[in-house]
Amino acid sequence: MADDDLLRADEARTPEEAEQLDDENRLKPEFVRRVEDALEAGDEGLAYELVEPLHPADIADLFELLDPRERRDLASAITDLMSSEVVSELNDYVREDMMEALPAAAVAEIAEQLETDDAVQLIEDLDDADQRAVLAEMEPEDRAAIESALSYPDESAGRLMQRELVSVPEHLTVGDLIDYLRDNEDLPTEFFEVFVVDHRNHPVGTCLLSWVLRAPRHIALADVMKREQTLIPVEMDQEEVALRFQKYALISAAVVDENGRLVGQLTVDDIVHIISEEAGEDALLMSGAGEGDINEPLRDAYSARVRWLVANLGTALVASLIIAAFGAAIEKLVALAILMPIVASIGGNAGTQTMAVTVRAIATNQLTRSNTKRMLWREFRVAFLNGVTIAVLIGLATAAIFTPMLGVVIALAMVINVVVAGLAGVMVPVAFDRLGQDPAVASSVFVTMITDSMGFFAFLGLAVAAGLAA
Amino acid sequence: MADDDLLRADEARTPEEAEQLDDENRLKPEFVRRVEDALEAGDEGLAYELVEPLHPADIADLFELLDPRERRDLASAITDLMSSEVVSELNDYVREDMMEALPAAAVAEIAEQLETDDAVQLIEDLDDADQRAVLAEMEPEDRAAIESALSYPDESAGRLMQRELVSVPEHLTVGDLIDYLRDNEDLPTEFFEVFVVDHRNHPVGTCLLSWVLRAPRHIALADVMKREQTLIPVEMDQEEVALRFQKYALISAAVVDENGRLVGQLTVDDIVHIISEEAGEDALLMSGAGEGDINEPLRDAYSARVRWLVANLGTALVASLIIAAFGAAIEKLVALAILMPIVASIGGNAGTQTMAVTVRAIATNQLTRSNTKRMLWREFRVAFLNGVTIAVLIGLATAAIFTPMLGVVIALAMVINVVVAGLAGVMVPVAFDRLGQDPAVASSVFVTMITDSMGFFAFLGLAVAAGLAA
Repeated sequence: MADDDLLRADEARTPEEAEQLDDENRLKPEFVRRVEDALEAGDEGLAYELVEPLHPADIADLFELLDPRERRDLASAITDLMSSEVVSELNDYVREDMMEALPAAAVAEIAEQLETDDAVQLIEDLDDADQRAVLAEMEPEDRAAIESALSYPDESAGRLMQRELVSVPEHLTVGDLIDYLRDNEDLPTEFFEVFVVDHRNHPVGTCLLSWVLRAPRHIALADVMKREQTLIPVEMDQEEVALRFQKYALISAAVVDENGRLVGQLTVDDIVHIISEEAGEDALLMSGAGEGDINEPLRDAYSARVRWLVANLGTALVASLIIAAFGAAIEKLVALAILMPIVASIGGNAGTQTMAVTVRAIATNQLTRSNTKRMLWREFRVAFLNGVTIAVLIGLATAAIFTPMLGVVIALAMVINVVVAGLAGVMVPVAFDRLGQDPAVASSVFVTMITDSMGFFAFLGLAVAAGLAA
Repeated sequence: MADDDLLRADEARTPEEAEQLDDENRLKPEFVRRVEDALEAGDEGLAYELVEPLHPADIADLFELLDPRERRDLASAITDLMSSEVVSELNDYVREDMMEALPAAAVAEIAEQLETDDAVQLIEDLDDADQRAVLAEMEPEDRAAIESALSYPDESAGRLMQRELVSVPEHLTVGDLIDYLRDNEDLPTEFFEVFVVDHRNHPVGTCLLSWVLRAPRHIALADVMKREQTLIPVEMDQEEVALRFQKYALISAAVVDENGRLVGQLTVDDIVHIISEEAGEDALLMSGAGEGDINEPLRDAYSARVRWLVANLGTALVASLIIAAFGAAIEKLVALAILMPIVASIGGNAGTQTMAVTVRAIATNQLTRSNTKRMLWREFRVAFLNGVTIAVLIGLATAAIFTPMLGVVIALAMVINVVVAGLAGVMVPVAFDRLGQDPAVASSVFVTMITDSMGFFAFLGLAVAAGLAA
């Protein structure tokens, strides 16, 4: 039994895999470099040999780590390893870039190997002319399925769903169902639930396979199936779909058309990417980085970000106008110019904190009209405590270095600005949400404008009122 | 067939449910108010009647929308609706708050109804004395399972895993497996995969139930099972677990101890919450809002946020020191004080954009040592384009309002600061990641310090160098 203790969990990987992945499951830089060197040297055989033992998801990662020229070289070196799993795991931009470099017939050939939802993902990114060219090369049946999926709105359940599913009429017994599953060659190989439908093809219940396997054969499906179901309308936005999968801990769900008829299914493995994307995008949206994908083309990144910076230039100008109104005071007391950015900056940070909390609470449906007032009151108290703490620190320091009166002025301005920041951090995103806008996109420009302006105005205004710059 | 067209997907909900949920699947404020009114009036019967038709996940949402006093009233009004699903769907803080208000015996009773992973969630939040009291009230077998789970580190696979699973020896046939599943009463009712183990209880493969159902009975499991598996070491951090589930599109995975023996399983429905939490927390961490949960106790929210604000006060003071060094110049030319926040503020925004993109790319394993140099070069170019665009705008405006020379100075300072911001936005999070720190937590204080200081220094320094404040 001695070897038992030596066996570690990591060794369950094949030895090749352990060589290529680091302990956070990322491809090791040395491995990537060896592939790059092989491609550089034109040694397609060596490149193939290196990549062959990888899991499809790791092959997709490898493509993403290479530069665009190397990606095409690698694709041509390992054509028969380019399985549907690899293509479906690729980053959208990388896939689009690679597909645009291939002739339409080659893209069509890849698309035909994929399940409908993955093929749609492949084709929806192409521009219209390329889309038509690829579809024209496909078998009529596959083409029809993809065209029908493309007829649904972008990012809707109809684009994501699989058409392949197992549905049976409600009058079957468990035994009938098992026989049907064993005898029917055309069924998908991987599924978790069987959908039970009525004569109009409306879903009436679902059966988990583990129940089917454990119930006696003579029992009617109607007696073992779960009748409560979460049906997904085909036009539902993917963000909403992701929230339902999460909230109700779904493994798969029936997708229904506007007449309530079963048209497809969604499984959780297709949804985890969406859950992660939707949850992660708020940080990017709040920073004004748009999609913020590192594979996004340069011109898209530039255009998304510069728009945001121009908007912020506008808000910075508003703050400058306020400073300009106090120009005479600053000339008399230069300490004001030295200290004023502190008040604005801490206010900005406090506002961003509250805004991030609010945006997340809205996104996860935790903040609704029912508890907005409680949230506002809570954030007011947190902001007041924060404001007083920072005010004492900066007030004492300022009193020691400059004058006690200037210390009082900056402390007061700080409390005012941090409290205003806390309230704005709740009210601005809530207002955008009620107006039907994504609170993550638009809030931060407004919150920053409010905290900057209020910071300068409160500090300079109080200083003048106190007669400090007389 | 006329009624067919009238049937809409939403009607698959029971009529009661449709009344309580809005079109984004949140509880309607009117409904919440009716429950609150019933509780206020002491009418427990009415409260029960209102809540009874809700899905457990919606009951959990309802608790979260109520204030703490109302939560306890509701809990006592609907005790027999407080199923394990409700308890496991509750927000951590709300659950902790409610459990602390209950006697240990009542908590123990709830815990015993739950699966191990949910019971652990319930108990791990309690303080040590309460934990011991609750455990003492439990059946020895349940207590042992929970104590063993609690022995693993917080947020590890061992805390999350279910001990209930189906594992069979590798010499069985498909038919043997089906008979075993049908005859054995003690198995869990919901599972998606069967784990195949060798004589030392090491996992050697997995069988999806849909394969089992569709393969001929005489085939050996060893011939249909999937041998490539993603094994989860019991000590693995939940963030890493979530990334593996996503990357390899897993439905369930075997958890193994340090000797490679099967000790539990993780299923994707337990992981989707983690995926969403981990992806969403970066926005909160970058803003310095800590956990940022709206149900977090006030003192925790205060202590997390004020620490951040104090850190930012430090960075603001550095910026002030730089301004102070140029005090004489500002006294001579007050326009400098008016314009300097613009340069600092746009730099801050540009740095935050790049930082958000970098943090996300690190979190999703898209940015590794293999492509850091390419990322840096890419962000340099985006920053240069952004910097030039903003510089032209602010330069022309400044030249028109003040002097052409001041326009040139601010434009140059802007390009410098935006480029520095872009580079810092990549390098700071990458450096923290390489030092083993979470880049989302610490980066923004440093990026802001760099962009603020560089903004003031470049602008005021260039102005002095150009002789503008002589």
